[in-house]
Amino acid sequence: MVNVDMNSRFLSRVIFICMLGIFLHGAADGQTGKPFIRVARIIVDSTDLDKYNAALKEGVETAVRVEPGVLALYAVADKERPTHITVFEIYASEEAYKSHLQTPHFKKYKAVTIDMVKSLELMNTSPIALAAKQH
Amino acid sequence: MVNVDMNSRFLSRVIFICMLGIFLHGAADGQTGKPFIRVARIIVDSTDLDKYNAALKEGVETAVRVEPGVLALYAVADKERPTHITVFEIYASEEAYKSHLQTPHFKKYKAVTIDMVKSLELMNTSPIALAAKQH
Repeated sequence: MVNVDMNSRFLSRVIFICMLGIFLHGAADGQTGKPFIRVARIIVDSTDLDKYNAALKEGVETAVRVEPGVLALYAVADKERPTHITVFEIYASEEAYKSHLQTPHFKKYKAVTIDMVKSLELMNTSPIALAAKQH
Repeated sequence: MVNVDMNSRFLSRVIFICMLGIFLHGAADGQTGKPFIRVARIIVDSTDLDKYNAALKEGVETAVRVEPGVLALYAVADKERPTHITVFEIYASEEAYKSHLQTPHFKKYKAVTIDMVKSLELMNTSPIALAAKQH
């Protein structure tokens, strides 16, 4: 009997630890669902480039800092053509992306930059492999 | 005298902890220097797509696991044209990228996929903002 009690206590502890792990993992992700990944290719008017880059940097950094479902936004410029910008966007889910579009910081970025953008190409993607160091 | 001894012991501990922090930070980064970021756009022969994606996934995951200077490799396919692949590549430095090209797993990926790739466009970039959640 003692043995059975020990086993059931051990089992309930294992279940508790597993549930805690699942809960914490969910809380850390901030969202459920599949990751939603987009690639944006933007061409900016060269006369507005510094202002555009400042607005983009502010929008991107605010989104990752305040929105639980915005996992990463990497904005880079082509070294040979600095007006050609790529943003690699990782959201926790499609819902997180939709909610991002409604935030004041995204709306501000959009309003400030609307006349600076000459071309905008948005690509929805399926992940093949998303490999990153833990940090 | 006791007080002075206490202070100098405290100070040497602080210096030791700071140096350890700097060392661990360097070890975690695996490299010094500026991050080196590339965007690769690849078009694959549709008859080889499954084989190509498997080889890419293996190469990408191995590189991030075994190479200290390969920080992230995100490989995605255009949802509308699955043969159009983008790889967003973050290395700790340009040296880390050059060293990646010499690894057995990269050479294997290259050899296996060389006849599957219809077009390859590589873009070196300058970061505007690299924002990611700590995880």
